[in-house]
Amino acid sequence: MSPPSPAVAQDDFVVRTRGRGFSDITGKVADAVAGSHVQAGIVNIFTAHTSCSLLISENADPSVRGDLERWFARAVPDGDPAFEHDAEGPDDMPAHIRAVLTGVSLVVPVRAGALMLGTWQGIYLWEHRLDPHQRKVSVTVLGR
Amino acid sequence: MSPPSPAVAQDDFVVRTRGRGFSDITGKVADAVAGSHVQAGIVNIFTAHTSCSLLISENADPSVRGDLERWFARAVPDGDPAFEHDAEGPDDMPAHIRAVLTGVSLVVPVRAGALMLGTWQGIYLWEHRLDPHQRKVSVTVLGR
Amino acid sequence: MSPPSPAVAQDDFVVRTRGRGFSDITGKVADAVAGSHVQAGIVNIFTAHTSCSLLISENADPSVRGDLERWFARAVPDGDPAFEHDAEGPDDMPAHIRAVLTGVSLVVPVRAGALMLGTWQGIYLWEHRLDPHQRKVSVTVLGR
Repeated sequence: MSPPSPAVAQDDFVVRTRGRGFSDITGKVADAVAGSHVQAGIVNIFTAHTSCSLLISENADPSVRGDLERWFARAVPDGDPAFEHDAEGPDDMPAHIRAVLTGVSLVVPVRAGALMLGTWQGIYLWEHRLDPHQRKVSVTVLGR
Repeated sequence: MSPPSPAVAQDDFVVRTRGRGFSDITGKVADAVAGSHVQAGIVNIFTAHTSCSLLISENADPSVRGDLERWFARAVPDGDPAFEHDAEGPDDMPAHIRAVLTGVSLVVPVRAGALMLGTWQGIYLWEHRLDPHQRKVSVTVLGR
Repeated sequence: MSPPSPAVAQDDFVVRTRGRGFSDITGKVADAVAGSHVQAGIVNIFTAHTSCSLLISENADPSVRGDLERWFARAVPDGDPAFEHDAEGPDDMPAHIRAVLTGVSLVVPVRAGALMLGTWQGIYLWEHRLDPHQRKVSVTVLGR
């Protein structure tokens, strides 16, 4: 007799970023879902920081990520004289605003034991600081 | 003796959009919640695309949605020469940016077997492409 | 023999805002998580309004919140002549747009019976209207 599927499974990993830019974490999240043996439910992906974020975006053409970066760099410029909070440099406050605009938590459905992403959807961690960082990501799978 | 309530229920529907604009999906999500027989928990609403999004906004005055559209059209202009990714036209990259800014996944509480929205809250799918599309929406209800 | 942990726990509280600005609700959410006796899972925090929002941001330096306010005030200006919806004043439509950009629903992991926030992360309700309001917040904890 097989044991019942776990209702809740939690896993963590670290993303070593190379400074501002995108890291595709779709595979790592998919692995955590597969390891949970949950067949139907949801997965929450969370990063415990305030200057990077998580997003779902187009996974085929790298120029989409280039254009995202260009749009945000113009909308939230580094070194904006309106900002008081610049203790860690001109990218400090812009990183916090970018993280608020894009969020640090995602929820994706799980079906048939797998992430239910669309064909063109990828899950990315977006580093908003100019310098490399180690970013913690937590994955929680709930379901049956 | 009644059977136990299901812990997880999943449902899908398709939204046929008429090009850029808002489709109210509150009723369809409410139906999925009612059909799940979950009394207390959460519902996740997810769309498997990168050029439309899901949002909760004011449901009474249509001018709110008009103003949302005007603000986003100005903030993320179609045909912006900064964008490289324009294979599908001048609305291609703006659609991806709008989807990142507003998100493709929502979580709403379920209580007493119903969506726990505020009086003025509606759930919308926002089509960001100029042409009509068929958009898949998945609803996952978790609880007891 | 102890009873099984509840799988779902729901709690509400009201935030009395003093007009536009941030209210730290991290402690109230942490209390709801502790009261749920859920050891591992997620917590959803939801506000049933369309002119305030919930966000996770830096919790140490108040100038971060000042800079967030300055950036949003410039990006979504009160009294913008592009807006039709101004029945409740020049801050009416900007409040809806800010709420759409930052969201009314958050999901945070729960581990070892506690909120799994990063050291520098706090949970805030952001009032976008100029006048004080009473804002309802619902907390749903799911897990085991």
